[in-house]
Amino acid sequence: MADAIQRLVGLLRQLPSVGEKTAARLVFYILSSPAEYGKALSGAIEDVVERVKPCRICGNLSEHSPCPVCADPKRDETTICVVEKVQDLMAIEASNEYRGVYHVLRGNLSPLDGKGPEQIGVDGLLDRLPGNVRELILATSSSVEGEATALYLKKRIASMNIKISRIASGIPVGGELEYVDRGTLGRALAGRREMQ
Amino acid sequence: MADAIQRLVGLLRQLPSVGEKTAARLVFYILSSPAEYGKALSGAIEDVVERVKPCRICGNLSEHSPCPVCADPKRDETTICVVEKVQDLMAIEASNEYRGVYHVLRGNLSPLDGKGPEQIGVDGLLDRLPGNVRELILATSSSVEGEATALYLKKRIASMNIKISRIASGIPVGGELEYVDRGTLGRALAGRREMQ
Repeated sequence: MADAIQRLVGLLRQLPSVGEKTAARLVFYILSSPAEYGKALSGAIEDVVERVKPCRICGNLSEHSPCPVCADPKRDETTICVVEKVQDLMAIEASNEYRGVYHVLRGNLSPLDGKGPEQIGVDGLLDRLPGNVRELILATSSSVEGEATALYLKKRIASMNIKISRIASGIPVGGELEYVDRGTLGRALAGRREMQ
Repeated sequence: MADAIQRLVGLLRQLPSVGEKTAARLVFYILSSPAEYGKALSGAIEDVVERVKPCRICGNLSEHSPCPVCADPKRDETTICVVEKVQDLMAIEASNEYRGVYHVLRGNLSPLDGKGPEQIGVDGLLDRLPGNVRELILATSSSVEGEATALYLKKRIASMNIKISRIASGIPVGGELEYVDRGTLGRALAGRREMQ
């Protein structure tokens, strides 16, 4: 195999869920496409690596700092939604249901992996709170680590005069009850609300 | 989503078996890796696009033309193995069972897709034959198109004094008979050979 191909296969293999065969298929796809495609791809990767940086306020990834969310005067700065990764911020943005701002942690607490409050960037969040923040929505995921992180943040912030909420767990919209796992169903029942 | 990220997601989505979500995951993997990784990846793609070209003799992809196989004086130039794509050449090379040279077609004949002998590069193969070629191994795949291509080549070359062989179809090494499909089993029986 040509050295250049082998080197690219080796690099592509490091990507998540890309093995040797998939990497080779990707390389041959690039080689069989017009050269413009490969050049655009190469340039786009370089752009992303060079230009996309974490927002200095919330940690969102963007070409600008502050990021477009933090810089938008129409966003409600009194509500901060805490997520564990940028993809979650994007998912919430895509839902078009939220007009507050965000704080992006670097994952969840996971003492066994050496990830304490400092490693996931809790300080950056606490630094923002003395302002005019009224509500903190804890939107870490519903895993053991996500719940532990939410609980830890609640305790750290409890003494401040800030409303702390947790996003709801329950059955997915359009989901059939019979296919929902027991844990989720238990949460959905416990979290039931009176119909208006 | 940042423009640079969106542009890269769009380009990655064009790759085979990469959808929107996978593309986004790849981008965030690149962003969460050291910048060196993204730069190396970008550079490797550019290298491959700029430096890897088809060998002028056999069509193999390589940084050199003639390719290392054609340039190797130890390879047996009297035997040409015809494959439908470069990946097949690489698979045969990896088996370490073959010491002849290759000819890489551009896919198989497929009249419905407008792929006739000219499109897949049959002329390039025929041009090589008047030399000292003694055997042509037709190693197109065992699909309808691959068989049709092999049959077509056999007819075109029949009048020349060249031995024409087809790679064997049969049960895979280590394969259990009960899980082998009927077509393959039929071929394996028809292609049986006397044990020495």
